[in-house]
Amino acid sequence: MVEAIWGEHKSLEQLLAALQGLRQGQEICLVTRLGAERADALLAMLPSGGLDPGAFRHHADARCLVSHPLPEPDPALAPVAILAGGSSDLAVAAECSLALACHGIAADLVLDVGVAGLHRLLNQLEALRRAPLLIACAGMEGALPTVLAGLLPQPVIGVPVSVGYGVSAGGQAALQGMLASCAPGLCVVNIDNGYGAAMAALRILRGSTTPSPQGPGFGGLQFEHGGQPEGQ
Amino acid sequence: MVEAIWGEHKSLEQLLAALQGLRQGQEICLVTRLGAERADALLAMLPSGGLDPGAFRHHADARCLVSHPLPEPDPALAPVAILAGGSSDLAVAAECSLALACHGIAADLVLDVGVAGLHRLLNQLEALRRAPLLIACAGMEGALPTVLAGLLPQPVIGVPVSVGYGVSAGGQAALQGMLASCAPGLCVVNIDNGYGAAMAALRILRGSTTPSPQGPGFGGLQFEHGGQPEGQ
Amino acid sequence: MVEAIWGEHKSLEQLLAALQGLRQGQEICLVTRLGAERADALLAMLPSGGLDPGAFRHHADARCLVSHPLPEPDPALAPVAILAGGSSDLAVAAECSLALACHGIAADLVLDVGVAGLHRLLNQLEALRRAPLLIACAGMEGALPTVLAGLLPQPVIGVPVSVGYGVSAGGQAALQGMLASCAPGLCVVNIDNGYGAAMAALRILRGSTTPSPQGPGFGGLQFEHGGQPEGQ
Amino acid sequence: MVEAIWGEHKSLEQLLAALQGLRQGQEICLVTRLGAERADALLAMLPSGGLDPGAFRHHADARCLVSHPLPEPDPALAPVAILAGGSSDLAVAAECSLALACHGIAADLVLDVGVAGLHRLLNQLEALRRAPLLIACAGMEGALPTVLAGLLPQPVIGVPVSVGYGVSAGGQAALQGMLASCAPGLCVVNIDNGYGAAMAALRILRGSTTPSPQGPGFGGLQFEHGGQPEGQ
Amino acid sequence: MVEAIWGEHKSLEQLLAALQGLRQGQEICLVTRLGAERADALLAMLPSGGLDPGAFRHHADARCLVSHPLPEPDPALAPVAILAGGSSDLAVAAECSLALACHGIAADLVLDVGVAGLHRLLNQLEALRRAPLLIACAGMEGALPTVLAGLLPQPVIGVPVSVGYGVSAGGQAALQGMLASCAPGLCVVNIDNGYGAAMAALRILRGSTTPSPQGPGFGGLQFEHGGQPEGQ
Amino acid sequence: MVEAIWGEHKSLEQLLAALQGLRQGQEICLVTRLGAERADALLAMLPSGGLDPGAFRHHADARCLVSHPLPEPDPALAPVAILAGGSSDLAVAAECSLALACHGIAADLVLDVGVAGLHRLLNQLEALRRAPLLIACAGMEGALPTVLAGLLPQPVIGVPVSVGYGVSAGGQAALQGMLASCAPGLCVVNIDNGYGAAMAALRILRGSTTPSPQGPGFGGLQFEHGGQPEGQ
Amino acid sequence: MVEAIWGEHKSLEQLLAALQGLRQGQEICLVTRLGAERADALLAMLPSGGLDPGAFRHHADARCLVSHPLPEPDPALAPVAILAGGSSDLAVAAECSLALACHGIAADLVLDVGVAGLHRLLNQLEALRRAPLLIACAGMEGALPTVLAGLLPQPVIGVPVSVGYGVSAGGQAALQGMLASCAPGLCVVNIDNGYGAAMAALRILRGSTTPSPQGPGFGGLQFEHGGQPEGQ
Amino acid sequence: MVEAIWGEHKSLEQLLAALQGLRQGQEICLVTRLGAERADALLAMLPSGGLDPGAFRHHADARCLVSHPLPEPDPALAPVAILAGGSSDLAVAAECSLALACHGIAADLVLDVGVAGLHRLLNQLEALRRAPLLIACAGMEGALPTVLAGLLPQPVIGVPVSVGYGVSAGGQAALQGMLASCAPGLCVVNIDNGYGAAMAALRILRGSTTPSPQGPGFGGLQFEHGGQPEGQ
Repeated sequence: MVEAIWGEHKSLEQLLAALQGLRQGQEICLVTRLGAERADALLAMLPSGGLDPGAFRHHADARCLVSHPLPEPDPALAPVAILAGGSSDLAVAAECSLALACHGIAADLVLDVGVAGLHRLLNQLEALRRAPLLIACAGMEGALPTVLAGLLPQPVIGVPVSVGYGVSAGGQAALQGMLASCAPGLCVVNIDNGYGAAMAALRILRGSTTPSPQGPGFGGLQFEHGGQPEGQ
Repeated sequence: MVEAIWGEHKSLEQLLAALQGLRQGQEICLVTRLGAERADALLAMLPSGGLDPGAFRHHADARCLVSHPLPEPDPALAPVAILAGGSSDLAVAAECSLALACHGIAADLVLDVGVAGLHRLLNQLEALRRAPLLIACAGMEGALPTVLAGLLPQPVIGVPVSVGYGVSAGGQAALQGMLASCAPGLCVVNIDNGYGAAMAALRILRGSTTPSPQGPGFGGLQFEHGGQPEGQ
Repeated sequence: MVEAIWGEHKSLEQLLAALQGLRQGQEICLVTRLGAERADALLAMLPSGGLDPGAFRHHADARCLVSHPLPEPDPALAPVAILAGGSSDLAVAAECSLALACHGIAADLVLDVGVAGLHRLLNQLEALRRAPLLIACAGMEGALPTVLAGLLPQPVIGVPVSVGYGVSAGGQAALQGMLASCAPGLCVVNIDNGYGAAMAALRILRGSTTPSPQGPGFGGLQFEHGGQPEGQ
Repeated sequence: MVEAIWGEHKSLEQLLAALQGLRQGQEICLVTRLGAERADALLAMLPSGGLDPGAFRHHADARCLVSHPLPEPDPALAPVAILAGGSSDLAVAAECSLALACHGIAADLVLDVGVAGLHRLLNQLEALRRAPLLIACAGMEGALPTVLAGLLPQPVIGVPVSVGYGVSAGGQAALQGMLASCAPGLCVVNIDNGYGAAMAALRILRGSTTPSPQGPGFGGLQFEHGGQPEGQ
Repeated sequence: MVEAIWGEHKSLEQLLAALQGLRQGQEICLVTRLGAERADALLAMLPSGGLDPGAFRHHADARCLVSHPLPEPDPALAPVAILAGGSSDLAVAAECSLALACHGIAADLVLDVGVAGLHRLLNQLEALRRAPLLIACAGMEGALPTVLAGLLPQPVIGVPVSVGYGVSAGGQAALQGMLASCAPGLCVVNIDNGYGAAMAALRILRGSTTPSPQGPGFGGLQFEHGGQPEGQ
Repeated sequence: MVEAIWGEHKSLEQLLAALQGLRQGQEICLVTRLGAERADALLAMLPSGGLDPGAFRHHADARCLVSHPLPEPDPALAPVAILAGGSSDLAVAAECSLALACHGIAADLVLDVGVAGLHRLLNQLEALRRAPLLIACAGMEGALPTVLAGLLPQPVIGVPVSVGYGVSAGGQAALQGMLASCAPGLCVVNIDNGYGAAMAALRILRGSTTPSPQGPGFGGLQFEHGGQPEGQ
Repeated sequence: MVEAIWGEHKSLEQLLAALQGLRQGQEICLVTRLGAERADALLAMLPSGGLDPGAFRHHADARCLVSHPLPEPDPALAPVAILAGGSSDLAVAAECSLALACHGIAADLVLDVGVAGLHRLLNQLEALRRAPLLIACAGMEGALPTVLAGLLPQPVIGVPVSVGYGVSAGGQAALQGMLASCAPGLCVVNIDNGYGAAMAALRILRGSTTPSPQGPGFGGLQFEHGGQPEGQ
Repeated sequence: MVEAIWGEHKSLEQLLAALQGLRQGQEICLVTRLGAERADALLAMLPSGGLDPGAFRHHADARCLVSHPLPEPDPALAPVAILAGGSSDLAVAAECSLALACHGIAADLVLDVGVAGLHRLLNQLEALRRAPLLIACAGMEGALPTVLAGLLPQPVIGVPVSVGYGVSAGGQAALQGMLASCAPGLCVVNIDNGYGAAMAALRILRGSTTPSPQGPGFGGLQFEHGGQPEGQ
């Protein structure tokens, strides 16, 4: 079982209490939106709560703290492709990748494939055909998932990213662009919501590897994110 | 093969020309956003373009014109569940259902399950567990897909609907609510985009019944919607 | 008599002067939106203004400074229920609870009842039936008061909370969702306005325990909040 | 029992079907947002559905159709005061008044009390003190409920009205003004939501005349509005 | 000399008076935003104003009335390329093309090149290299000019088009997407402003065929559009 | 005495009743926002209300109905200058001019002075210096009052006009531009609010010709506009 | 002569250079939006630029630096009244007052007159009748100038203030409320623009004390504010 | 060849890696949006990456780091004119100028030409006629490019600048004003996008000095900006 805690608006005391509750249940814990400085402070507090700091690792790129070990990736599933236009979108793509890893799903990060340099994306097209699902992170005008959905038939999840300035500051232009997309069948999640895109992928992929959707494989799945995890 | 034409901003002459081009290729044609009056006028113009009006049918509920016959539903797939809070959301739900039918996917319409009368939704929960995928259409505050995603593990696609008044006029409040959802893994499409939700479902479901994502089942698939279908 | 001072945009000198004026009248003083650091500085300045720091207490959770003693809760009134989805909404709920306490009204905080985990809310339903009034604080999509108002007949006051990111940053999505609610009879106050929700509850509850609305119990009531308290 | 149907986005056939379902249960039916022309057409269709047009009446001012007879007003309750700045706000005030009447609650309409002519409002102040609750409908800048809440201690519900032009077109300026009000304890509902204000008043007033909130007086109460009434 | 009159907010009497003034000066007159019905009525009024209806022609596609004859296209200049995703964008593209024709500049319309069907655009790439300037009209998410500017080095002018629904209604999403574009050097004009794009092209192209910018070729140029042409 | 009635959201019956009330008091009546068709219908209804249609005149340009005779213009005051960029802004300028005339203040309309043809404005500069006050009506980007306030020292009132398309539709761009103006001392009223600009001018000009502001010249002045005139 | 420099976006080096230029011309210099810390640093730099720090004074309340001596107030003019709801609006009111003082116009600050405590405003009404002009600064819902303009006949300039939270954060709700005001003749300036309100007052008041508007009293007036003062 | 890197959202490590990649190719490197502090830190890190800090220079005004030497300006081209209203717009104008210099295009900065002091702009008119292209940077209401485009026939690129407060904060009012401009042929780029304006100018100017647009002069041109430069 995996439990996620949205770390942004919580005090370190609240985070510690949440982790204590979850670790008793032997769950994998993922704390999102936690920068390096706050993560270090939290790690230093863990012993006082009876937790072993060595069982946690902070991923600076993803701004996430996660408990270890993570499950082995499911060998029956080709890696999900997570695409991003540039290094500025990396934090969102990495949060998404790590959230998938917590659920035993491998992902390939495909960077530098923005639509302003289309040939780099076209060069990757054959490799992308092998992925069961595409997650496209993009700021600015957010056209990457639109172009992708026009080229490939798999499920495409667009994640607007809050990089940019002027009209693209905050990710609104990218969000609008993805929702307004002329490429049919593109799904969208909230701005910067790498974790949510991973959970949407999980819903889709579990269905595609399970004999019937109401089967036992689903029984143990727990979605706990967005401000109100169990036990806080 | 299926081709969709977005009917809202096109003249009848443009629609006729598009249908002529597509019917030469023996494709199933779906014209969306076409009210009864414009549909009747278009049907009356078909013979002048060498087309048989008897091969088309207008669905007033869905505001769509579609060519016939439609394919048989895929028997290997349980019907998709399309949920809506009330009869005001029916047009979007029906467009979605018809678009799925064009691709041989059956759907159940589950109406009257708004969150203000939660017991009606809870009564349907067991039946909903059998659906491979849930599409939730909602106007007003748009909370239905959030509640649904908290209760069930399948993929959930939220479709904001432009019914309402004041802050909910135009569907913006429902859209914001679905994107901001505290239930992780909820995907969203544009306001009133029943067709787009169907195409997202198609991308997901084809993957789940196909041995490998790049297999032949996908080869003939054509996504042509949103203002620029082939041959217009 | 109770006087509230909105502390956010005032200098410490302005706050001190306001407190001096109010304490001469033996009034209970509530300073809202005052973090721990500014509160400590203000407490240290009190003696220079002839005030006793021991008569004030800072509540870090509520970000409020309040004078003591507070009145005994009215025994004729069951506690108001203040609900919140997660620990991120705690500051707003606590401000609301403290403001009620200043007026002698008890409140129960009911946390961890977000709509993504509906069973936790349903488990509390019987207990909630005993409350004369429900105040629901929610960020993200803000669906909690909608679901609540669909389940229970009491007055429900929705308080949007400014936690969230992307479209829910600043609390606008929660506000729109509450106003657009399909559950009739839901009332809304400004984002993060825990104090305002408490004052609305006070208006409602004083009416329900008083023989006639213009009776003497109301005579001494003083609403002084929002930038222009008496004597500033 | 009372059932309300939001008439704006429903076809006449949908409305007829809803009324048929509700009348079987002997319920009082209120159809809101229904202009004279559509109401006449619906009345003419009633016999075909086995319903007696004589049992319904259309109120043009309120743009509502209601079944008759309405219940006698509760004699234990002083009339609610519904205030409005001018005749342009009348439709919203009348919808509110009619919805209260369906539940046996009397209301006084107090027109021509806009804040630009403050003396007319001040002249009514003593009379307003006798009302158990104040509902203030206002377009333009929407300052009426703010001024009212500063002058009187009862519950005040603000209803923004979509009259105006430029920045006040659609009622957004009035809505923002009411939410931002410096008068504490003001509650707000959606723009033009006269029905919702009535339901909020009902929640408040039933509590104030009932020994305990879960008593039998509430047992039969049914809130069914906002797109998803029972049986549509 | 060419004079343009923005026809949308003017009465037929105002348009007639404006045309009378301009024709005295032997100028080419272009009335934009004039539908077929209003154009017919204006043509019927021309004789009463001493003007010959035969000297004017209405272009229904472009929604423009123009006086004749138009100048011969400048043979020294390759045609400008005006691109559009679909037939829904045709009116804006046609207005742009006609405005260029009034100034003796030829243009090629390149339709059906939306980014959801990227191969159609890539097929045109070599032909597009010959155009001195590219004008890309796009609604929905408006990604066409971004992709174009990433592929080709010429000046690119993006024209957002107000087709679409939900978040793309009114052209705002397309406008934001073009301004936020990650492809550097893309210029944007107002939504639906085909005429403005033509005038921007004229400014650019006259410079490139003229020895010095203040030369005689520019002397006779008159920009008269946007509500206040000479003599209205 | 002058009374104004905002005609836009009122029924003809409401307008008739208002006029009856006002005419008893011998007041000059101005009904704004009343198109020709509704004005004709109202004039035809006047005799049934005991009013003489001959005492009223409809000004189609200004979309106003006004009673006659109007007062003689004050000879001690130079005419106010009302400027507008083009004929599309005429309705707002004319409403403003007529409202001033009701109060005995003369005004000059100065059209065709948009900032895109700056020389036409500069040509009028000397004449404009004689006006005691400048009212500048402008749609599109609304730069006219900014340029004017940079050139002349008198009071300048900017009136944004709702002509335009795309970002200028509804007058929001003009409004923002006037408020953001880099020319200090520019005052702004609501979009299309010609009447309000006239009333602001009246407040300013009465002050400048009256020995003391509380003198008798002001005593009879009645501001009655905006939804709640006396006696409606 | 008076010159104002908007200090917010300028470096200290830019401010020093501007002051050097202006002081050569013996002008009164007003630097707005300059906090205490930056003001101290600028004062310390003045000698290096050949300027005497003793000739300047920083007003912390107004966040302005001004050169001395200021002119004597014009004895022929009663003081302008500057009203504000609470101490949070003080900075804007003080900037306004100081800007008037630079031009020899006296002003009275009338604080604590918010509309939530209407009696405090009504108590000041007789005193306010003596002011030639009223400037009302208000945050939150911004209703103060509306109520004021309904009560008094003088020119009223509304200044929205950016205090508040939720919907009133940034001053937008106050701005909308003032523009939408049902009290006719209210003029508005940009949010927090105390300086602009003072300049509008100056334009109005100079006219009212001058025999003819183009007279010599106006000759020396220089408006230099808003990013582009002379000599920067 | 020139490569630009948008520095704002990248870590110093990411910037160093990007520079290493680009310098191997002997390209001119321009890092935009890089303040003095981060620039110094990056310069100090260069040796560790095998790069010579002496080959780079930081321009504080433009907030850019650039490699040296820059190419000689093209002697066949008159300098581009970059205009700005005040010193607050300098950073954007300087970024634009430096980006042009990287491509061998000279530019003149023309400051202090805001529309509130029109004569300073008119004084420069003759000099401006010699520029092949005008780039106008403006905050506040952004009217400068509108006035400019009305006076001069060259290509005009408007760059909204994010200086200002209230409605002009963030540059939205300036952006809307430029897009809504009544001066035809004005092109606009994103807020603060000095680099983008330079690239648009480059597209235009290369065309005007090159025999045919697909000629060899274009072969080496590389547009690499906006988040996804080659090799990051």
